[in-house]
Amino acid sequence: MLARADELGAISEEPDRLVRRFATPALARAADCVAGWMEDVGLTVRRDAVGNLIGSTSGDAPPLVLGSHLDTVPDAGRYDGPLGILVALAAVERLAARGTRPSAPLEVVAFADEEGTRFGTAYLGSAAYTGGLEREWLDLVDADGTTLAEAILASGGDPEAAVGSPAPRLAGYLEVHIEQGPVLEREGIPVGVVSAIAGQTRVRVVVRGEAGHAGTLPMAARHDALAAAAEVVLAVERVGRSTDGLVATVGALALSPNVGNVVPGEVRMLLDARHASDAVRAGAADAIRAEVEGIASARDVEASWTLRYDTPAVELSPELRHRLEAAVEAAGHPVRTLVSGAGHDAVVLSRVCDASMLFVRCAGGISHDPRESVEEADVAVALDVVERFLRGLAG
Amino acid sequence: MLARADELGAISEEPDRLVRRFATPALARAADCVAGWMEDVGLTVRRDAVGNLIGSTSGDAPPLVLGSHLDTVPDAGRYDGPLGILVALAAVERLAARGTRPSAPLEVVAFADEEGTRFGTAYLGSAAYTGGLEREWLDLVDADGTTLAEAILASGGDPEAAVGSPAPRLAGYLEVHIEQGPVLEREGIPVGVVSAIAGQTRVRVVVRGEAGHAGTLPMAARHDALAAAAEVVLAVERVGRSTDGLVATVGALALSPNVGNVVPGEVRMLLDARHASDAVRAGAADAIRAEVEGIASARDVEASWTLRYDTPAVELSPELRHRLEAAVEAAGHPVRTLVSGAGHDAVVLSRVCDASMLFVRCAGGISHDPRESVEEADVAVALDVVERFLRGLAG
Repeated sequence: MLARADELGAISEEPDRLVRRFATPALARAADCVAGWMEDVGLTVRRDAVGNLIGSTSGDAPPLVLGSHLDTVPDAGRYDGPLGILVALAAVERLAARGTRPSAPLEVVAFADEEGTRFGTAYLGSAAYTGGLEREWLDLVDADGTTLAEAILASGGDPEAAVGSPAPRLAGYLEVHIEQGPVLEREGIPVGVVSAIAGQTRVRVVVRGEAGHAGTLPMAARHDALAAAAEVVLAVERVGRSTDGLVATVGALALSPNVGNVVPGEVRMLLDARHASDAVRAGAADAIRAEVEGIASARDVEASWTLRYDTPAVELSPELRHRLEAAVEAAGHPVRTLVSGAGHDAVVLSRVCDASMLFVRCAGGISHDPRESVEEADVAVALDVVERFLRGLAG
Repeated sequence: MLARADELGAISEEPDRLVRRFATPALARAADCVAGWMEDVGLTVRRDAVGNLIGSTSGDAPPLVLGSHLDTVPDAGRYDGPLGILVALAAVERLAARGTRPSAPLEVVAFADEEGTRFGTAYLGSAAYTGGLEREWLDLVDADGTTLAEAILASGGDPEAAVGSPAPRLAGYLEVHIEQGPVLEREGIPVGVVSAIAGQTRVRVVVRGEAGHAGTLPMAARHDALAAAAEVVLAVERVGRSTDGLVATVGALALSPNVGNVVPGEVRMLLDARHASDAVRAGAADAIRAEVEGIASARDVEASWTLRYDTPAVELSPELRHRLEAAVEAAGHPVRTLVSGAGHDAVVLSRVCDASMLFVRCAGGISHDPRESVEEADVAVALDVVERFLRGLAG
């Protein structure tokens, strides 16, 4: 699996860093590579209308789907996405070698877009696979002015068929993914079972004060937008720290005019808050908003609050979670249940079937970075757990 | 004077905004225009080796210099610089009309560079005029790769002569300039007498924490560079507010990676602190630095402190200041003494002679902006004060 991750990691749009966006020749080459491995383990391979790669065992019943994504962010690591596909393929191979036949047919899916790097909308691959691709998305435009419909056509797909496809009947979904966080590493545990995917609030806050000459505007006469923004940053952190399970972040901040000798007149910020409970998240967002308004009022500056994104939390299937926990226990490892702070294809799959996820410990919690790294032993544990999970479903 | 400021304001390198940098055709056209006005009032006009425009009355004694600069920042207003030249010309005209002859010859100088917009070093014009242009500056390069020496040559000047010129013997210097701050406006006073030009400390502070996924990195595990930087911003403001006469600013701040869903790993900031007393300014810089170190230590992040710029305060000539104050009083206006937070040609002139400055109230304290504005009545007061100042020196 690690050797294959290295092989896929060398298939990129650019020579010096890994980037594989939706409907690019690099993604097609990576899919051809995976298709060969699918055939090697006896799966029947097809590509759907947007280029999702699907390898199936025989059988007419609704399949149990093992999947993850093959696309990447720019300057990516080798494991975010591909690892889930490679563990799935290895598990299918193991079952075949042992002659075990699960109660449902298996389908291994390599989704063509999860990161949303090219068209700004995540989950295009799993949306199409589950019949949820919306027609208006076909008009989305990438940085070069190519529409999503044109990109699908150019890569050999069929935009009309992608939009018109019905929701499939599925027996369930399991996705293996690196944790992208430091919890498993800190606790010394190889894998974790995901209970829910956190809901997310993203807000743009713009603070408008008054620009002025840094040498001539007395302190008492200032309405410094950056000083107000600094109080907002600390308020966001304070709410995050004081709410169990909440993460709250100001990740982006830009000043205007952003010149050393000018008192900042405007600051634009992006706030991000996530929690497994939508009620807790809404309460935290309200608390932060009240802080922003209080700061603006005290400093006599304006502050606008624009909700950009509000996705509810997704609880994963309790039944599949318990089966995964049993598999982890049977494999001899502590059962650690985690909330995923990042979104995954499982969010979309959970709309049409029972969905579950297994996290694999990763070095330093680092992802979306060439330094992304996993231990071979941890990947072996993940494979062991997936195999036990599938054998538990064996007829 | 206001009509002439409008006329000069229309002479620009660009059609839609005012920008007149050193040694450009636009600056030469503006200088030609001013040269005509100089001749109209009977001054003998010459251009020195870097393009400073000098208009002199007759006489061999060291002249009293009235000057300001003709270059501008990009997207400038019409008064920062030119106003001082226009008031000087009007004062010479008044004296001539009344037959008053000051004890020293007069020299009106339109400096060719004060803002330093093109070569990044301010005061090139007054440095050359006072014999202080350093040879190594000739190798400075503008954004297009042109050296200062090449630019001087191309505009008809002589770089070798500019470097080799001796310090002139001058009887004194008076510069009229818009305040660029809100103090006179707030106090309802048309002009102010400058006692000193504040010293300035500029520091780059870089905070290095640890980047991480905003959704997966628990609050307790974070070393958020922006949260630390926010504390620094507020500490700078606190020191500024608690030190009489100090202005302290974080004007520029940039995050890395500056993405909404990533905990910031690094923040780069520019700090600016100014005060009329170098000892007070040094104490404030030490206090801010101690705060930065304390914040970095408490948050377990790194913070570097790099001094980029440290210019001492300049006390202007007490003798000329008292004469200016007497002229203001004689003109029937309250005497308001100010410290200039911005640098001016008077800094350079003070190295070779007694230097003085008169500030004119400007709307909203705004400068370096097309909205720069002065009242005609205030400019008339400035002219009245300068005329009285020169008559006070009359033999």
